[in-house]
Amino acid sequence: MRTIKVNLGKRSYKIIVGTDILKELPKYISALGIGKDAYIITNKFLRIKYGKKMEEALKKSGFSVRFKLVPDTETSKSFNMVNVVLNDIAGYDKRKQIFIISFGGGVIGDLSGIVASIYKRGIPYIQVPTTLLAQVDSSIGGKTAVDLNQGKNLVGTFYQPRLVLSDVELLRTLDLRQLKAGLAEVIKYGIIKDKQLFSYLENHFLDILERKTPAFTFIVRRCSSIKAGIVEKDEKEEKGLRTILNFGHTLGHAIEAAGGFRGYNHGEAVALGILCAALISKKLGMLSDESLLRIESLIRAVGLPRKIIPRNRFLFDEGLQSCGKKLTLSGILKAYYHDKKFKNARNRFVLIQGIGKTKIVEDIPLRIIKEVLRRRI
Amino acid sequence: MRTIKVNLGKRSYKIIVGTDILKELPKYISALGIGKDAYIITNKFLRIKYGKKMEEALKKSGFSVRFKLVPDTETSKSFNMVNVVLNDIAGYDKRKQIFIISFGGGVIGDLSGIVASIYKRGIPYIQVPTTLLAQVDSSIGGKTAVDLNQGKNLVGTFYQPRLVLSDVELLRTLDLRQLKAGLAEVIKYGIIKDKQLFSYLENHFLDILERKTPAFTFIVRRCSSIKAGIVEKDEKEEKGLRTILNFGHTLGHAIEAAGGFRGYNHGEAVALGILCAALISKKLGMLSDESLLRIESLIRAVGLPRKIIPRNRFLFDEGLQSCGKKLTLSGILKAYYHDKKFKNARNRFVLIQGIGKTKIVEDIPLRIIKEVLRRRI
Repeated sequence: MRTIKVNLGKRSYKIIVGTDILKELPKYISALGIGKDAYIITNKFLRIKYGKKMEEALKKSGFSVRFKLVPDTETSKSFNMVNVVLNDIAGYDKRKQIFIISFGGGVIGDLSGIVASIYKRGIPYIQVPTTLLAQVDSSIGGKTAVDLNQGKNLVGTFYQPRLVLSDVELLRTLDLRQLKAGLAEVIKYGIIKDKQLFSYLENHFLDILERKTPAFTFIVRRCSSIKAGIVEKDEKEEKGLRTILNFGHTLGHAIEAAGGFRGYNHGEAVALGILCAALISKKLGMLSDESLLRIESLIRAVGLPRKIIPRNRFLFDEGLQSCGKKLTLSGILKAYYHDKKFKNARNRFVLIQGIGKTKIVEDIPLRIIKEVLRRRI
Repeated sequence: MRTIKVNLGKRSYKIIVGTDILKELPKYISALGIGKDAYIITNKFLRIKYGKKMEEALKKSGFSVRFKLVPDTETSKSFNMVNVVLNDIAGYDKRKQIFIISFGGGVIGDLSGIVASIYKRGIPYIQVPTTLLAQVDSSIGGKTAVDLNQGKNLVGTFYQPRLVLSDVELLRTLDLRQLKAGLAEVIKYGIIKDKQLFSYLENHFLDILERKTPAFTFIVRRCSSIKAGIVEKDEKEEKGLRTILNFGHTLGHAIEAAGGFRGYNHGEAVALGILCAALISKKLGMLSDESLLRIESLIRAVGLPRKIIPRNRFLFDEGLQSCGKKLTLSGILKAYYHDKKFKNARNRFVLIQGIGKTKIVEDIPLRIIKEVLRRRI
């Protein structure tokens, strides 16, 4: 068990990373003094698998417990679901001192964060991430986003949790596709900030895919530290420092969106986005052939996609999956132009000058973006 | 025209108070550099009366303009309406740089503030308050609240505007009931913080009721300064300093709520709440007979209610108005216990030791609260 501190003045909090530490959650919450009524947002699977133990442990420590189950799909990441959960809390909240526990992956974390940030102008919340992606990325930093009927990720807040508890044991039952999706973000951290982490992944990716606890512990700690360090310096993404976390996400989001969010998942799309960003860096003469090759090799080795398949059906680990839309170059470009990070008709990319070294570049010629995407399709 | 600065570091902004200054709005917005697409949230009446001129002036300065009309009722102060407006903005927002102008009273200000705070994790907004209550109070300080189906004022944020422009000319067409409602808050400022303002009101209340511009200018400036000073010291109501602004609001809110929000309006309920809080102060030996009498006299003089009428119909300036619920002592007490400021089963009141001098007191015996309410019913 180890603690990483996120230093944000009055909004500082700890990230606890360890093995089989879920049972210690009540102890950590008690120490925070944030209330006595736990409102746990989770899904049915997690409720069945861990809910009873969690409830017993919390009650033993004097907390009341209420579970709110939400669907384990993107529909939970919507403003409509925010409305549903807020009304549920309000109906339950008679002279209580509620705090929220987000117990799930990125979707549940986003939903919980925004609900906590606006209910009564902000109540405390705790992140207990259960996926690799959530443990290494989305549970840390307080950035939330949910969808409107009119578009994805359009509503959100910056609102820090009071604690992040990452029990890597929870990752052992994660399905392989989700594990790989999380790995895409881990690879991203290596590329933007940590050569050593990148080398570790090259040497130990099999340990991760085989769900070995020490490997999980190593990468979750390392990534949590990197993310914490970046968030500390640029909490609200005002200084451009936090921007480097978007490496691979500009075209990644566009690929995700062009597939109607039912083709590639976030991590898979980010892997493709990483490859595109690396290739753009190479084309602009910023990145060596050798570094590009290392990135491509690692992504191939862990089994993340390297080619955008322009079909509306994909073969994933679980079998053939239908995608809402056929992925085309024009579809990706359209989604890219619609992206909210697109300011003043100038584009803006996080590129790399080597593994561990980023550079923000604006006004990349559309010709180059198209070329790179074409090479991937 | 005079400028009051709200000093909040990076979130600092100006309050401009003056006569016939609405036409200068584009100039002030240009100076802020907050975008080029104005999204104006307002109601039908204001759209018809001022919309065309506003639109022309903004377009002349290079802004695009879109109006979003919302009903001029409490239904606009709801989370459901937040959803409606967010989707409208998202549908409109194709490669735009949108900022919001809140053009209306407190309801429109609350709605605009929360929408601005969560759309894309926060876009700039400007307050152009059109009622006395909004000019002296709700437009300043960034505190917003909207209703859920499950209860009133349960969702909100702290999110500062980038500018407040108070044109007192807009108050000249305000109906008398709304004018008086705003005066209740002005009286509150005098009582909690400014003896001179209180004396001014005693001597000049007729000028205000007769809508004289110099009187409007004086009170809006004075109250804006007081509010700005308090908000500067305790932006997020963490230090208890901002709490004094709740003087008269604890029982005021309960009276408003017990009437189903269709009996006394906010200002009228606050006037009754002020009288109750003054009477409690008197009963606890903190307030002199003379000060209590001055407060009662001023409230009577301006024509605000001094007695809680336990009926379900009220005679207002505009005639007889039906109220949703019959106001009873038990109804008020029930609403009071449900109030979100009620912490750990301890009550908490802002009381006064004289005009201009507050004291926060906890654990007031229920007996005294009941006695005071009974004297008012």
